[in-house]
Amino acid sequence: MTKNQRGNSASRRGFLRGAGAAAGLAAPGGIVLAAGNPENQPPNLPEWGRHLGPGVIEEPYGARSRHETAVRRYVPWLTPDRVSSVSFTPLAEMHGIITPSGLHFERHHGGVPDVDPVDWRLMIHGMVERPLVFTLEDLKRMPSVSRIHFLECPANGGMEWRGAQMSGVQFTHGMLACSEWTGVPLKHLLAQCGIRDGASWLLAEGGDASHLARSIPIAKALDDAIVAFGQNGEAVRPQQGYPVRLVVPGWEGNVWVKWLRRIEVGDRPWFTRWETRGYTDLMANGTARQFTFVNEVNSVITQPCPEKPLSGRPGFVEISGLAWSGAGRVTRVDVSVDGGDTWRTAALEGPALPKAVTRFRIPWEWREGQRAYLQSRAMDETGRVQPNIAELRRVRGVESIYHKNSIHTWLVEPDGGVVNVQIDA
Amino acid sequence: MTKNQRGNSASRRGFLRGAGAAAGLAAPGGIVLAAGNPENQPPNLPEWGRHLGPGVIEEPYGARSRHETAVRRYVPWLTPDRVSSVSFTPLAEMHGIITPSGLHFERHHGGVPDVDPVDWRLMIHGMVERPLVFTLEDLKRMPSVSRIHFLECPANGGMEWRGAQMSGVQFTHGMLACSEWTGVPLKHLLAQCGIRDGASWLLAEGGDASHLARSIPIAKALDDAIVAFGQNGEAVRPQQGYPVRLVVPGWEGNVWVKWLRRIEVGDRPWFTRWETRGYTDLMANGTARQFTFVNEVNSVITQPCPEKPLSGRPGFVEISGLAWSGAGRVTRVDVSVDGGDTWRTAALEGPALPKAVTRFRIPWEWREGQRAYLQSRAMDETGRVQPNIAELRRVRGVESIYHKNSIHTWLVEPDGGVVNVQIDA
Repeated sequence: MTKNQRGNSASRRGFLRGAGAAAGLAAPGGIVLAAGNPENQPPNLPEWGRHLGPGVIEEPYGARSRHETAVRRYVPWLTPDRVSSVSFTPLAEMHGIITPSGLHFERHHGGVPDVDPVDWRLMIHGMVERPLVFTLEDLKRMPSVSRIHFLECPANGGMEWRGAQMSGVQFTHGMLACSEWTGVPLKHLLAQCGIRDGASWLLAEGGDASHLARSIPIAKALDDAIVAFGQNGEAVRPQQGYPVRLVVPGWEGNVWVKWLRRIEVGDRPWFTRWETRGYTDLMANGTARQFTFVNEVNSVITQPCPEKPLSGRPGFVEISGLAWSGAGRVTRVDVSVDGGDTWRTAALEGPALPKAVTRFRIPWEWREGQRAYLQSRAMDETGRVQPNIAELRRVRGVESIYHKNSIHTWLVEPDGGVVNVQIDA
Repeated sequence: MTKNQRGNSASRRGFLRGAGAAAGLAAPGGIVLAAGNPENQPPNLPEWGRHLGPGVIEEPYGARSRHETAVRRYVPWLTPDRVSSVSFTPLAEMHGIITPSGLHFERHHGGVPDVDPVDWRLMIHGMVERPLVFTLEDLKRMPSVSRIHFLECPANGGMEWRGAQMSGVQFTHGMLACSEWTGVPLKHLLAQCGIRDGASWLLAEGGDASHLARSIPIAKALDDAIVAFGQNGEAVRPQQGYPVRLVVPGWEGNVWVKWLRRIEVGDRPWFTRWETRGYTDLMANGTARQFTFVNEVNSVITQPCPEKPLSGRPGFVEISGLAWSGAGRVTRVDVSVDGGDTWRTAALEGPALPKAVTRFRIPWEWREGQRAYLQSRAMDETGRVQPNIAELRRVRGVESIYHKNSIHTWLVEPDGGVVNVQIDA
């Protein structure tokens, strides 16, 4: 698409709109504030302030407000069986950078095993001087680290290679989460085993029924990989690999092996079915790229979005969203409201941590009746810049599922509705 | 206590031990790893890896492992009624710096109201040009910020002024939590109302039945106070003030008014019963300090601790804990294993954020049969150094409940048990 075409609003009418949105599927979540009950409003004393509420409840573990239950991991619509199932983080309802563990997206290949931590073991063997088996208690005694990192399925956005398909940000980008992970640097465990000369790869295998296993270069394992038992301050959740998962900062979620059971050290990749049948990037010429581990620089606007339209809300809007890069820190995010003709630089909320999501914000004034094409474009400390969809397709074609990190567009319609479109589809 | 006395192990025998520990009260939580079931251990395939687990569960919101339910906010033992109730964060089981919202301590004065967000309003009035009433939707449209800050009840540790009383870190320091808070800077709301000349204080009032109300200097409100609707990525929890609470970074939890309903602007403090009857520092001479808002520099070792003893675990131990300061960033934490005779500087886990907890870690070798007195001493960017209990008592006496930030001591006994003691009691 040329600059002139961009300015042509007639041509925009042909842009593919999100099929879900067009079909009128309801966006999940979102509190709608009606006028409310005047009895509860100033200067009246609200009903809830006229009597004592429950004391410290006998629950050992707190719960959300009953008014918030509409905010949910989307119940599976894709492969709802136990072999292969998925849920999505409701990004439109998220604040800040931490994803509540209860709303973290999920992707399983053999269902969620119920692992007894007393029986859990991690075996490290192969090209090592001393094969060792570790208990959870062993890990908890060792030097540990806590790091805030994003976790993203490489298939995030994968339905959108051929056009805008999904009805909201929960589905276009919701296989993304960001947590504080705590555990033992993998390098400490490998040091105890003693890596033999010539070793260059390792295999990480999960203990669930799928026995998901991925080959990872030793260099990454020695750099920043963590054998994690903590997530957002407490034990890793069952859906996230309880009691122990591998954390591979910045790399595709599939290599963050859950219910970690075994690490084998070797001198070449294993070419498991997880790196041959899938999790490869199919190119236009029929070949496939393997071992494309890094989730490159990416961003999305989460406010407004299809789930958070502007209908009936002209005037000031804070555009807000998330940016992330598997290569390091996000250093800048630009935002356009005219489909990329002009850009303004957004404010980044600190701390902008490496391989973590970073929230950006920028003020905007929306006039009722105004059509707008909202985009965000992130840059990282390595100099990588998020490509637009045309640039990405030129390199990758449209046959891929994985690693789609192009600039995303939300169309704000004159009535304030927000739909998923692609410019230059 | 003099240096010589410190070296006298006989004198230590008289130190007051934690009453709970001495009475053999079980510490809550903590997974005990038995030998386990060899059927589930390498090279065998564990039972949970031999069949498919449940798929993406139909729950809209995820839960903990059933093996973790021993980790709990302690069920109330202090004033268990609805007027005044409390629960404690299980610090011994926490990782990193984020407190899971489900394990956040609670302190209520009128129970937990069930606030309908549709009806919720915030009224700002008093010495302003334009009294205004805000809805939740209004707030969510305004420029917001997300900040990681600790929240600490000023009574945290308050049972320990006269000696070591509590049986574990959940009770000595568990009225502490750290969350990512999201909301609108209070200064934006005040700017919309227009503060009149001469205004210097404001009153923040809760909408619950206790109508807790605190006077806060305008200078603090304009500095970094946040009218928060987000906690750890989702809506503020009911027990934390749903839908909106005041966040007053670094200041005592009592002024972080929950279920925020009303802000009145004035030119002097209100001297509410919350700042006369309590939340004042009673001094040895019978006078009381008022408006001692800042929770000064503090720290505690959370591993090992009474709930996480070293029994049967000689050898390497990573001493780990939390440090925090209401005045800014923690810049240094020193750790002693000999009751303050010698100190080593611990590593601080980054990012060390202002007015947030910072995790520290330092390696140690514990010999079976070794008696050790573990202490941590934090410093912050203002130069404040955590005092020892004798120094604090010299200034404050022993009549107070609030703002006890002295160096804490855990005695590791020869058998590896850990108990709460005070040196120089």
